[in-house]
Amino acid sequence: MSLIEDLKWRHAVKAYNPAKKVSKETIDKIVEAARLAPTSSGLQPFKVIVVENQEIKEKLVAGALNPECMRDCSHVIIFAAWDKYSMERIDKMYDFTTDERGLPRGRFSSYTDKLKAIYLNQPAEVNFAHTARQTYIALAMALAQAAELRVDTTPAEGFDNQVVDDVLELSKYGLKSVSLMYVGYADPANDWIAPMKKVRVSADEFVIRF
Amino acid sequence: MSLIEDLKWRHAVKAYNPAKKVSKETIDKIVEAARLAPTSSGLQPFKVIVVENQEIKEKLVAGALNPECMRDCSHVIIFAAWDKYSMERIDKMYDFTTDERGLPRGRFSSYTDKLKAIYLNQPAEVNFAHTARQTYIALAMALAQAAELRVDTTPAEGFDNQVVDDVLELSKYGLKSVSLMYVGYADPANDWIAPMKKVRVSADEFVIRF
Repeated sequence: MSLIEDLKWRHAVKAYNPAKKVSKETIDKIVEAARLAPTSSGLQPFKVIVVENQEIKEKLVAGALNPECMRDCSHVIIFAAWDKYSMERIDKMYDFTTDERGLPRGRFSSYTDKLKAIYLNQPAEVNFAHTARQTYIALAMALAQAAELRVDTTPAEGFDNQVVDDVLELSKYGLKSVSLMYVGYADPANDWIAPMKKVRVSADEFVIRF
Repeated sequence: MSLIEDLKWRHAVKAYNPAKKVSKETIDKIVEAARLAPTSSGLQPFKVIVVENQEIKEKLVAGALNPECMRDCSHVIIFAAWDKYSMERIDKMYDFTTDERGLPRGRFSSYTDKLKAIYLNQPAEVNFAHTARQTYIALAMALAQAAELRVDTTPAEGFDNQVVDDVLELSKYGLKSVSLMYVGYADPANDWIAPMKKVRVSADEFVIRF
């Protein structure tokens, strides 16, 4: 199979079969693709929260625009970004990087000094606008990985971030929710969008060439 | 091969071999993956600009933080988002969607009315913050597709958007540049990052489980 075939196969499922659970091995692969996603300056300024516990999912229903998906999906994966950059966060990631590469700590300090000069002089919300963008790369990799495994998903930005942040106590980690992804197996009888054609603008309209 | 293997293979290349060009067929596949990317409400609020012309690339060098990559890569693909939402843009996409699905126009009007009530009451910069986020999903799919084909890439957010927007005359299309992606074949002798270990935080640190 190929990514293009996988992307043609997938769609944003509207109804899940609550009786069909996704294996831990499959969830781990989906999360692994998100973990391997590239991020700006390699900072990986986010985490993923994997919720399988039905009681927690029921609490998240209050913040969901598609409560049936939240309730009936096998797992929900929340992408949550750093609420801001900090010297500690940047140094921690680059110390880890140099350690992993067997290089002296500070090997990339001229680069991290530049990052700090930019990010630490921005308001937290400007930082967050940037960290939030990075999560979309990981969301995409997770969607593609699930499609490769023929597992159904629904990406969603439309939800009550405050409810999600509160239920998962994300502020404790210095995180704020950005998007989420329902994971499971569709209920074909109720997934009204399944029979509909996937629509994308034509390549001629999508691409400008020079 | 699998997406996870492809993601392990790829890295952000730092130097390209200017003598090695990527075929049109390969570029078309990379763009196709971006075109198939899901977007919020299916609006696809962006285009990709594929620049192969060396004279245009030389003009873009002025806005590049890594001018050698811009000059030496085979193609540069720019992801450019709608500068704002508008009634016309939303209606155009949903008229196209209903036409493609053989449904009456307006079939989704209760939904598009909600979108309009939200987006058309926001300042253009809030709209753009949202359209820009969507481009990251397409960027990710393009990166993954290039990796599947073992073509080298470098994603970049750090560039002078004004230079890129001006050279490509993006305002003419109601677009603003968000990110770009160099595409080509690495010059291993000068790609200093190639021998270094890919570093990602551990799965234990990356994932919070409930």
